[in-house]
Amino acid sequence: MALITLTTDFGLNDHYVGTMKGVILNINPAAQIVDICHSVQSYDLLEGALTVAHSYSYFPAGTIHVVVVDPTVGSPRRPILVDTGKYLFIAPDNGVLSFVYAQAERVTVRHITAEHYFLQPVSATFHGRDVFAPVAGWVSKGVAPTMIGDVITDYARFALPRPKPAGDNAVKGVVLRVDKFGNLITNFTAEDVAQLLERRPAFRISAGKGEVRNIRSAFAEGAPGEVFGVIGSMGFLEIVANRGSAAHVLGANKGCEVTFSWEVAAVSNP
Amino acid sequence: MALITLTTDFGLNDHYVGTMKGVILNINPAAQIVDICHSVQSYDLLEGALTVAHSYSYFPAGTIHVVVVDPTVGSPRRPILVDTGKYLFIAPDNGVLSFVYAQAERVTVRHITAEHYFLQPVSATFHGRDVFAPVAGWVSKGVAPTMIGDVITDYARFALPRPKPAGDNAVKGVVLRVDKFGNLITNFTAEDVAQLLERRPAFRISAGKGEVRNIRSAFAEGAPGEVFGVIGSMGFLEIVANRGSAAHVLGANKGCEVTFSWEVAAVSNP
Amino acid sequence: MALITLTTDFGLNDHYVGTMKGVILNINPAAQIVDICHSVQSYDLLEGALTVAHSYSYFPAGTIHVVVVDPTVGSPRRPILVDTGKYLFIAPDNGVLSFVYAQAERVTVRHITAEHYFLQPVSATFHGRDVFAPVAGWVSKGVAPTMIGDVITDYARFALPRPKPAGDNAVKGVVLRVDKFGNLITNFTAEDVAQLLERRPAFRISAGKGEVRNIRSAFAEGAPGEVFGVIGSMGFLEIVANRGSAAHVLGANKGCEVTFSWEVAAVSNP
Repeated sequence: MALITLTTDFGLNDHYVGTMKGVILNINPAAQIVDICHSVQSYDLLEGALTVAHSYSYFPAGTIHVVVVDPTVGSPRRPILVDTGKYLFIAPDNGVLSFVYAQAERVTVRHITAEHYFLQPVSATFHGRDVFAPVAGWVSKGVAPTMIGDVITDYARFALPRPKPAGDNAVKGVVLRVDKFGNLITNFTAEDVAQLLERRPAFRISAGKGEVRNIRSAFAEGAPGEVFGVIGSMGFLEIVANRGSAAHVLGANKGCEVTFSWEVAAVSNP
Repeated sequence: MALITLTTDFGLNDHYVGTMKGVILNINPAAQIVDICHSVQSYDLLEGALTVAHSYSYFPAGTIHVVVVDPTVGSPRRPILVDTGKYLFIAPDNGVLSFVYAQAERVTVRHITAEHYFLQPVSATFHGRDVFAPVAGWVSKGVAPTMIGDVITDYARFALPRPKPAGDNAVKGVVLRVDKFGNLITNFTAEDVAQLLERRPAFRISAGKGEVRNIRSAFAEGAPGEVFGVIGSMGFLEIVANRGSAAHVLGANKGCEVTFSWEVAAVSNP
Repeated sequence: MALITLTTDFGLNDHYVGTMKGVILNINPAAQIVDICHSVQSYDLLEGALTVAHSYSYFPAGTIHVVVVDPTVGSPRRPILVDTGKYLFIAPDNGVLSFVYAQAERVTVRHITAEHYFLQPVSATFHGRDVFAPVAGWVSKGVAPTMIGDVITDYARFALPRPKPAGDNAVKGVVLRVDKFGNLITNFTAEDVAQLLERRPAFRISAGKGEVRNIRSAFAEGAPGEVFGVIGSMGFLEIVANRGSAAHVLGANKGCEVTFSWEVAAVSNP
């Protein structure tokens, strides 16, 4: 088996993704290629990193995950090959694999320097086609990571933005992304929410032009159109509407503030 | 061969569909997965049912069709496995397979209860990943339907909305969907149209802010930009424009009324 | 190996593409199907031709490329099978393969007349399903092109629109397409640009409501938000913005004029 996934910000309106698949199959006709997502917002490394982080571990061991969100294509940023023992990743070294590093027990990161595996001449603008796809093709055919380049340790990484206290009675987070249903995926983790609720069961969550006072355990528990919180499939608090778009109801988008707060009068003061 | 198709309302902007594919391939790396459509309008069971109904029968016998339009995910609605003898379907029991039931000579519907095939812990919000995809993976590996759950007969189904008489001189239907070209697919079947034309050859069809007086046999028979009727590839009357968008020209959308009518003076009265 | 690619203007909102895949797999379950692009603007033959031209040659020899942009479906326009020696193409005879003809050393074009390979009855509106997909399925199973129809030489073709002089001090081109990033792909080739710069190093390029005075070698060389020119991965001059959308900044779209010009005073006059 040679399973390769693709995650990019290339969209599906152009021939870019199809061309990458052609390059891979031209090198390894036996490769099986699966799209994870190509609608990452252009140049958005955080969104790319989240997309990969919430999907890669569902694939079989040995899968090669190619991730091309590459705002500095054509600059000296390095292409890298990352080995977690269970999966391989091929991506630019710009932090788009940050959450893979955070989740893996160990990672070996290599600077891809074996230019004889690239599609020559390498364009300045489309390394998905000329660098990442052909390296994926060759690695899927059995070229060993050691043949691709040397180990580096100074690879780029960033942390997920974390909610922050805002005075004594509030914690401010952010909408990380809005999904197709209009669910607002926030950066409050299930653990964050559990801790906040334990401390202060009477809360409100403000997002956009609205407020949420309930966290339910499933979409179907809300009244139709009601906006409420739920711990979603990614392990984050999501602000959702039953059979509706919370984004639309609240006028909220990616990047919006999401604030947990408590009435001062409502604070339990032991 | 283990061929699995996916039809959902998950869209392509998120990692949801890719994650389902990972789950399937992790169970059965030999599965071949084909997308039918992921752009079903969110929560729209009728649109999901139409999408499946007009595509499933073109696939090879033995194909497993997974359909996830699931507005009540997290509620007690049942997951089901449907066997028509030629195809298997895996879906929530909410009527999204209604037209499969209507077209099949016989169906066996099972309540999927074999939770040991689910991805544990099952989330409350993403049964595509945790229930439907893994069951599809296991069934594609040869797990017999009898191992998945017991037969039920009280499964949910609904009928296609049918055109209705509106007084003596009109029949009112509806736009079921608008395709990428702006063609308005109505709920008048080819048989409906044949009967209406036989009774009253002089007619007009009003939809949105316009009227159509011709039913032609192909797009190319209209003048460029002309709006007219055609019996489309799904067997329904479509209001179309040659090299243009009927939806745009008429200002008509999904759900709009489509009315066949006759001038009283034009009625042949034997 | 039986590799089939699909390029259409069918979009991904409907069941059309999935249905074509079902038809192919029903004939040849061993076929591997890869999407190049389904978002070609409806009825736009030039855009379809460009999409194919910039992707087909990256696929393995023997790939069957199916291209369905078919504004005159239902008219007598011919379905054709094109053999370049290295690749096969199946498409309507409307010029959508023009750039394949231009790039190939030799082509054999056949009028597809073997109706026993079609899906019967053939609809008037969906030849992707009823003609092109089944022929691709059968050819991928080994049916020889000679069995599909006779050779023709009067097949339709058109030329890429070329930049034109506009007085002594300007050359006018056009935006061929806008990609997902908002890059404006123009019809000035790398050779055109090299010749223009050689003659007149001091130039400006106007597009939409803006002007560009620099051609850089990579996106990353511009300041964030700067709009400039780059020779893109298709070999055309692109007007781009570093980490931004040139289309948005300039208010420019597909079909916009792009003008290279020189100040009269700046002209070197040997």
